[in-house]
Amino acid sequence: MGITIKELAKLCNVSPGTVDRALNNRYGISGKTKERILKVAKEHHYRPDARAQSLVRGKTMTLGIVLFDLYNRSFAQMMNAIEKEARKDGYHVNLVLTDKSPEDEKKCIEQLISQKVDGIVLFSVNKGEGFADYLASLSTPIVTLSNYIADSLDFVGIRDRVAMKEAVDSAVQLGYEKIIYICPPLRFYKHSNIYTQTERYEGCLESLRAANLLEAHQLITDPDYLTALDPLSFEEKRTAIVCSCDYYALEILKRFKETNLIVGQDVGLVGFDNIDTLQYVEPALNTVSFDLEGMGSEAIRLLLNRIETDRAPIKKLLSHQLIRGASL
Amino acid sequence: MGITIKELAKLCNVSPGTVDRALNNRYGISGKTKERILKVAKEHHYRPDARAQSLVRGKTMTLGIVLFDLYNRSFAQMMNAIEKEARKDGYHVNLVLTDKSPEDEKKCIEQLISQKVDGIVLFSVNKGEGFADYLASLSTPIVTLSNYIADSLDFVGIRDRVAMKEAVDSAVQLGYEKIIYICPPLRFYKHSNIYTQTERYEGCLESLRAANLLEAHQLITDPDYLTALDPLSFEEKRTAIVCSCDYYALEILKRFKETNLIVGQDVGLVGFDNIDTLQYVEPALNTVSFDLEGMGSEAIRLLLNRIETDRAPIKKLLSHQLIRGASL
Repeated sequence: MGITIKELAKLCNVSPGTVDRALNNRYGISGKTKERILKVAKEHHYRPDARAQSLVRGKTMTLGIVLFDLYNRSFAQMMNAIEKEARKDGYHVNLVLTDKSPEDEKKCIEQLISQKVDGIVLFSVNKGEGFADYLASLSTPIVTLSNYIADSLDFVGIRDRVAMKEAVDSAVQLGYEKIIYICPPLRFYKHSNIYTQTERYEGCLESLRAANLLEAHQLITDPDYLTALDPLSFEEKRTAIVCSCDYYALEILKRFKETNLIVGQDVGLVGFDNIDTLQYVEPALNTVSFDLEGMGSEAIRLLLNRIETDRAPIKKLLSHQLIRGASL
Repeated sequence: MGITIKELAKLCNVSPGTVDRALNNRYGISGKTKERILKVAKEHHYRPDARAQSLVRGKTMTLGIVLFDLYNRSFAQMMNAIEKEARKDGYHVNLVLTDKSPEDEKKCIEQLISQKVDGIVLFSVNKGEGFADYLASLSTPIVTLSNYIADSLDFVGIRDRVAMKEAVDSAVQLGYEKIIYICPPLRFYKHSNIYTQTERYEGCLESLRAANLLEAHQLITDPDYLTALDPLSFEEKRTAIVCSCDYYALEILKRFKETNLIVGQDVGLVGFDNIDTLQYVEPALNTVSFDLEGMGSEAIRLLLNRIETDRAPIKKLLSHQLIRGASL
């Protein structure tokens, strides 16, 4: 904590009001006094209290966060980081959950607007130009997270396509001849924003195309993917199941343990996200890791920056890395 | 969905305004017309739309939820259920996180009040009569969750003390001679509301007292409990480590696997909460299960009821059950 206005006033032997006049370049103070106060302020490394200033400017010091739900552990991890980062700057966060409903997402956003939040971090289920226009019309700073909407909006994400290509490459290099790709959300292609999901699947296809394995791949979008998987087929060709997120991989791992199928031996398994649950699970899952917490805090940094300054949209892509477990 | 006012108006060949007059017993309608409309409404099982009515009454249709954080999976599970239950009645939820800070919790509550939420579900870190008085002064319906504050407030929880006593009883019955109890939050006894934690520990003590094993027990409140545990001591007496929540048990299980200590054989391990992460973990953890989702939705049911009706406070205790895994 730096020196306060009160302490500055005492040091300069003037009233806090006079210090305020000097610091904020307001009328009612002589040039000489102002110069003296500014000098002392500089010597004592005075920094304005952003929170107090913001309150004066009529802000609510509240940020709205829009997520699908908290079933996927990755959302909870991001949310924890978002809250911690916002708190550093004296902001509170309000989390609203859309349950992946485009209509409810709009209602949630309008609720946040009516509560006069200073900005919004949006993990969107809506997409398209019309939606981008709608967001622009709100005149509230917005940062989009993971699910890209438009170039006109700040965005924080990773190179999902590249990351998934690398993950599938690693399976191919280990001699797997057939890839089964699990991604139930791809069913919602027409109505929902599944940007990260389509990018990841495209990455898988790129890898398979390069390896001439496109013909031998299978895409499962059935929400009952556990039933859709046919373990007998694993015997024909060396098969790896690649999941668009760790959650599906965990469910498959659990099911295979029940049926005495050995993952990493009878069949390969790959996840994505490296959620913290994985550290308790065996065998260690091959997955793609990125800084989930860093993504949350980066979204807040961008949002606070946008609240303060009117600037061109920024697209921030965080790095990722393959985690080699024992499931391939 | 029942019949709407518009549809009723069409059936009765009157304007929606006239239907509204009849239904809400307002002036400007003849007795005959009113009677006719009410008859048709009854025949078609007309039910007023709670949401539309509430909006008219000037509600925000928003509920505030106050939790510590989302690190513990049990909070995320409860929050999902809360959101789903509130949505059924057309309510949105706003989650705020206190990071276990009593000061921040008050700020969070005031933020929700200033946003005019219709009610609050509170998993509190504050406690005591002064805090209960403060909450009463807010004149906003409140339901407390898990961490009891006062009889004057609605409460949803479980019989933590009884449940933990049963869990420790089960270890004692299996011949464990020494219990090490892990609960870092007990350090905050003076300043924080750790009602569930003290209740659980009391339950452990009750069990040990009855079994004449009180002397042989050890309480660890060190946040670095992994270091505080001494595996060498497990060889002296048959030892079970009882954790106040599953999260600590998972961390211990992971550590012991790294050091080739076999849980369920070299040492016993017991958790509490039966969080959904456990289904992916081996060996299966002995733990205490209760309906985490049911607790969240019950809190919302109580809150909506309190918003509608002024009634005496209700204390709702949900049932629990022991889960016998392979870790004892």
